[in-house]
Amino acid sequence: MLPADGPVAILAGSGRLPLQLADHLRATGRDHRILAFRGFAARSLRQQAHAACDLLDPGAVLRTLEHWRPSAVTLVGGVSRPGLPALLGAYAALRNRAEVKDLLMRGDDHLLRGAIKLLEERGFTVVGAHELAPDLAIPVGFQAGIAVSDADRTSIEIALQVLGSLSPFDIGQAAVVAGSRVVAIEGPEGTDRMLRRVGALRRSWLRRSRDGGVLVKAAKRGQDLRVDMPAIGPRSVAEAARAGLSGIAVGAHTTLVLDRDETARATERAGLFLVSVGLPWMDSPS
Amino acid sequence: MLPADGPVAILAGSGRLPLQLADHLRATGRDHRILAFRGFAARSLRQQAHAACDLLDPGAVLRTLEHWRPSAVTLVGGVSRPGLPALLGAYAALRNRAEVKDLLMRGDDHLLRGAIKLLEERGFTVVGAHELAPDLAIPVGFQAGIAVSDADRTSIEIALQVLGSLSPFDIGQAAVVAGSRVVAIEGPEGTDRMLRRVGALRRSWLRRSRDGGVLVKAAKRGQDLRVDMPAIGPRSVAEAARAGLSGIAVGAHTTLVLDRDETARATERAGLFLVSVGLPWMDSPS
Repeated sequence: MLPADGPVAILAGSGRLPLQLADHLRATGRDHRILAFRGFAARSLRQQAHAACDLLDPGAVLRTLEHWRPSAVTLVGGVSRPGLPALLGAYAALRNRAEVKDLLMRGDDHLLRGAIKLLEERGFTVVGAHELAPDLAIPVGFQAGIAVSDADRTSIEIALQVLGSLSPFDIGQAAVVAGSRVVAIEGPEGTDRMLRRVGALRRSWLRRSRDGGVLVKAAKRGQDLRVDMPAIGPRSVAEAARAGLSGIAVGAHTTLVLDRDETARATERAGLFLVSVGLPWMDSPS
Repeated sequence: MLPADGPVAILAGSGRLPLQLADHLRATGRDHRILAFRGFAARSLRQQAHAACDLLDPGAVLRTLEHWRPSAVTLVGGVSRPGLPALLGAYAALRNRAEVKDLLMRGDDHLLRGAIKLLEERGFTVVGAHELAPDLAIPVGFQAGIAVSDADRTSIEIALQVLGSLSPFDIGQAAVVAGSRVVAIEGPEGTDRMLRRVGALRRSWLRRSRDGGVLVKAAKRGQDLRVDMPAIGPRSVAEAARAGLSGIAVGAHTTLVLDRDETARATERAGLFLVSVGLPWMDSPS
């Protein structure tokens, strides 16, 4: 068995989240090791990483972890969209090739769930970043920027209904609603690309109109929050502003905020709002 | 009251459907008049039209209809995406400006429903193209092109579940599912643009993989089929092939097929399938 007092192992992909998690663990005096995925992890993270592995070399990842004997492993940051054939080849040594292909075809969530299952089968304990650093998740009642209008409140309600309806399916972690109208549902393209689509739609269609609208992002009913936990940051705020929205609402407790202060400032600068909302399909956390 | 033996008035937008409806009415000896919307109706249609109006001049449309005294009015073909300010100005004379703006913001369906309400308030009977020409709708058990694999059958089931879940909302008349994974849900951008998005996603992400997938298109529960009835034609088949899909499934009885023979031939040429499926949330027609 692995020691309960072993370090936390951070398997780090792209973005600022791995760095913030490492900062938090350092500040709270918790021993940790960072394994940076080459080609994904940010330079500033790679400089303090204890190891670097190729995402396409799961054998090296497992050997590193077996050497560290961590009390917990967490996967944070983006690792999306390596080529299918490369991934297939890399994982075929560890798993049944058809099984890996099936995971890939069934979506990011299934792929990450597969990775977690593999780690757990090897005896590792896998936890979510929000379990290690609850402060990274947005609290209940968070509010930054402008006030939420009644129209936007209605749009938020509608978006939550849409996302709730899609909860059983591996799609739709976010939606855009404007003036009670559902304008877009997020697919595998991700939030930023969906917001660019909304911007293009508005420019071509409702030309010169700028009637606000809301981006709503929420975890699914029963979602394993160790897998693809919803996240929001300054870049999403900028994309939302560019798409002509009036604000963003995210699920309380179940959404990570990348650099909360900077995100709040960006929201104010852009003249938007950012609020947290309770998700009707989520139990309130203990 | 309007005479029961008056002509059918076709308010004709873009695409081939208005022409096919006119052909059908001519073949069945039903008297009809065509009002072509300038800038939308195809040239071949405008040549046989009895009147041409500007979409932004609803007064002229109503005067023409009052002159014709039709037994029924039908709206067919596309009239999407005129500029918001132009439409607002044109309709403000007939309706409350805020009401028109509200209709526009709430989506195509609401806009068309508003137009139908306006016509009905003026005493006209509005019917769907499928009521005048049932042959234009796809029958139960339609099958063209290749056989449907078990995997694609599962994908069709999942897409129908997604579309059924979204039935209460003014979004999602079509979805793409590949290998049991929901890849895209159609928004106001329309089917063709959604398919292009799927193509781009696949090229950037699942590079060099081509694992099929299905476009499923279906009317919503309780949808007024006089409004934006789902339609499929050779162009959708071409876009589906370009997106790497293996086929298309559409709701039986509730989907219009533009030129059924040509669509079936295009399906065969592209090596895809096109099938009709029963929609669990629709009553079977009498």
